[in-house]
Amino acid sequence: MKLPLGYAYAATYAGIRQVEKDDVALIVSGLPANAAAVFTQNRVQAAPVRLGRRHLKASKGLVGAVAINAGNANCATRTGDAVALATCKAAAKLLKLPVNQVLPSSTGVIGVELDARKIVDALPRLVSGLSADGFDRVARAILTTDLVAKTAFAEARLRRGGVRVAGMTKGSGMIQPMMATTLGFVMTDALLPAGHLRAILRRGVERSYNRISVDGDTSTNDTLLLLANGASGVRPDGRELAMVEAAITDVMERLAQQIARDGEGARKFITIVVTGTRDNEGAARMARGIANSPLVKTAIAGSDPNWGRILSAAGNAGVVFDPAKTEIHMQGVAVCKGGLAAPFSEEELKAKLDAGDCEIRLAIRGKGKGEARFWTCDLTEGYIRINASYRT
Amino acid sequence: MKLPLGYAYAATYAGIRQVEKDDVALIVSGLPANAAAVFTQNRVQAAPVRLGRRHLKASKGLVGAVAINAGNANCATRTGDAVALATCKAAAKLLKLPVNQVLPSSTGVIGVELDARKIVDALPRLVSGLSADGFDRVARAILTTDLVAKTAFAEARLRRGGVRVAGMTKGSGMIQPMMATTLGFVMTDALLPAGHLRAILRRGVERSYNRISVDGDTSTNDTLLLLANGASGVRPDGRELAMVEAAITDVMERLAQQIARDGEGARKFITIVVTGTRDNEGAARMARGIANSPLVKTAIAGSDPNWGRILSAAGNAGVVFDPAKTEIHMQGVAVCKGGLAAPFSEEELKAKLDAGDCEIRLAIRGKGKGEARFWTCDLTEGYIRINASYRT
Repeated sequence: MKLPLGYAYAATYAGIRQVEKDDVALIVSGLPANAAAVFTQNRVQAAPVRLGRRHLKASKGLVGAVAINAGNANCATRTGDAVALATCKAAAKLLKLPVNQVLPSSTGVIGVELDARKIVDALPRLVSGLSADGFDRVARAILTTDLVAKTAFAEARLRRGGVRVAGMTKGSGMIQPMMATTLGFVMTDALLPAGHLRAILRRGVERSYNRISVDGDTSTNDTLLLLANGASGVRPDGRELAMVEAAITDVMERLAQQIARDGEGARKFITIVVTGTRDNEGAARMARGIANSPLVKTAIAGSDPNWGRILSAAGNAGVVFDPAKTEIHMQGVAVCKGGLAAPFSEEELKAKLDAGDCEIRLAIRGKGKGEARFWTCDLTEGYIRINASYRT
Repeated sequence: MKLPLGYAYAATYAGIRQVEKDDVALIVSGLPANAAAVFTQNRVQAAPVRLGRRHLKASKGLVGAVAINAGNANCATRTGDAVALATCKAAAKLLKLPVNQVLPSSTGVIGVELDARKIVDALPRLVSGLSADGFDRVARAILTTDLVAKTAFAEARLRRGGVRVAGMTKGSGMIQPMMATTLGFVMTDALLPAGHLRAILRRGVERSYNRISVDGDTSTNDTLLLLANGASGVRPDGRELAMVEAAITDVMERLAQQIARDGEGARKFITIVVTGTRDNEGAARMARGIANSPLVKTAIAGSDPNWGRILSAAGNAGVVFDPAKTEIHMQGVAVCKGGLAAPFSEEELKAKLDAGDCEIRLAIRGKGKGEARFWTCDLTEGYIRINASYRT
C-alpha cells in the first residue's frame, strides 16, 4: 500500500525513556495541511493538548508539522506549558514554519517534569533525518506499554487519480476514548476543505475511537489528528467525497481495533455487537457497559461462557430494555434466549472461547433499530502486573 | 455486644453449593417487624428481588421472616418466580405467617436453574433449629466468594431502656451498589414506625452501601433490608430517634466497609476522601471515579505513589473543577499541590503504601463545601484468578 504523498517522518532517541528506544518523532507535511483534531474530554488536560488547541485556532486549522514525544505525558508539571512551546518554537525555526503550524503531542507518565532541552537538542537530528520512509519508525517511536506498532492504510481511486490514507496510533492502557484516544495521526493527500475534514473526523471517531475500551480510563493526552495536505492534487467531488470518507473511516476503525487488541495484558480481542435498542446511542452505551465490566472481561480470559455477567452488565448500562426479550450469542452459540439460559454444550463453547478472537452479540427482540459495535480485550493477570509497576 | 431482642436465626446445608457448607438460612422475627428495603437498580432483577418488592407492598411493610439461599442467584432462570414463591409459601406454612410476610433473598451464579425442592426440604430443619444464637452461623451461610463473615453491632441507651442493632452482609465481587448492595440484613429491636424506618434507610444507604465499590459492577440481586420489631418495647422520641438512626447508620457503614475490605483478591483497603467540590454529589462522583479506576487500584496494589492516575481519574468523573487548585495526599503525604508534583520521598511513601490500609485524600482549594468518603480495595492478580474461573 502506498503512503500519502507529501509527508515526511523521522524518529530518534532523545533520552526521555530510560531504555534506549526512539522517544521523539516528527511528522512534516511539505504543504501545510488542513487539519481536524479531537482531544481528550478529561478535565485534566496535558500542556501539549492545551497548546495544540490554541495553535489549531491561531493557524486556522493549518498544520505543517507535529512534534511528538513518548515516555512523558508533559501533564501536571510545573514547566509543561513552557516545554510544549519551546518544542514548537524550535521545530518551527528549523522547518521555517509559523510556530502555530506546529502541533506538540506527548504520551507517557503524568506528573514528572519533561526536560525541553532533550527534545530541542534532538530536533536537528530529526529534521535532517526526515523521509517518506520514516513512517514505520515513527509508528514505533510513539508507543509506550504497547507491544506492537499500530498502522493502517487505505486508498480511494477517484476519477482524476488516487488518493491515499495512512494512519498510526498508540495506546494499550488508560483507554476509553471520549471523542478521541491517545495519539492517533491520520494523513491523507486528498485535497479536502477544513469543514469536510472536521465532519469526516467527527463521524469517523464515533465509529472507531469512541467504540473501544481497555480499562475504562480516559487519558489526559488523548489526541486524534487528521491531516489532508492535498499533495495528490486530487479534489474529490460530491460522490467521491464519500469514497474518501470511507477510506479515512476504515483506517481509523482499524487503528482503534488494534489498540483494543493490544490492550495491556490482553490475550483476546473481543468484539461486542448490540442490536435492537431504541437508538444507536443506547446500543453503544450498552456495548460500552459490557466492554467495561471486569467480570465479563475476566470470564472471557477464563473461556467461561458466563453469560449471566453479560446480561447483568447490560442491565447496568442505564438503558431501558426488557431483559425477557434479550438474546445473547457467544462465538455464534446461543447462550441466552428470552433472558433465560439456552441449552448449549459448555465444553464445546469453552473450547471456542479459547480462540484469540471472541464475539459477544446481544440482541433485543422487538422494534428497536439501534445498533453498535464495540471492541475491547480480556482482563488478565498481565494487566495487573503491568500497572502495579509501571513507573518502577 | 448484645443482639436485638425478638429475632431468631438458623442455617443449614441444602445441597445448592457444590461444597458442603451452609447455603440456606432463615431470619425470623417473633413479632412481625416494620421493614424498609432498597433493591438493585440493575434493569435485570432476580426473581427474589421482584417477589420481595411485591410482598413488602402487599404486607404494608411487615416482615416476619427472610428466607435466604447462597450459591445460586435465582436470576434469569425459567423457573425463578415459581422457586421464590414456593420458598416463601413453605416457610410461611411452617411459621404460620401470611405468605407476603416472608421475603426471599438469593445470591450466587446467574442463569442456572435453582431447585426449589432443596430449599423446601431444608426448611423444617431450619425452623426447628431457630435460635437467637444462630446469628453468626447465618452470617457465614450467606457468603459466596467472601473470605470473612461481615457483621456489625451497635446499641443506643435511651431514657426508657436500651435498643440494639445488629447487621450482617455479604459481597466481595460485582460490587458497586446503586441504592443497595448484595444482601445486607440489619435488625433492631427499637419500635420504629415504617416512615421513619424508610427515611433512616434512605439516608444511611447514601453514606454506606452507596459509597463502596470493588469492581464497578452492580449485581442483579442487591438487597438491603432493615427490620425493626419493637421487641425492646422502647419507642424512641424526637431526640432519641437521632441516636437510634446514628446506631443503625453506624452498623450499615461498618458492614459496607467490610465488603470493600474483603473485595475479591484484595490485599488493601482504600479510603478515599474528596473535599472542596461544589456539592456532596460531585465529591461522591469524583471519589467513585477514583475508586473505580483500575489504574489507581493497581498502583495501590503495587505501592506505587502514581498520583497522576488519581488526578486523571478525578478529571474523568464528569465533575467541573480546576485541576490547578487540586491537592492530593496519599497516606498523609502531600504528593500533588496546585495540580503539580509536590516534593516527597518516593521510597518512604512506597513503604507507607505497603500497609494494609491506604488513604487517598483529594482536596480542591476554594469555596466548595462538598465532601464525600468512599471505600474500595486494590486490584490484584487474585481478582483475575477468582473471576476467570468462578463457575468451573
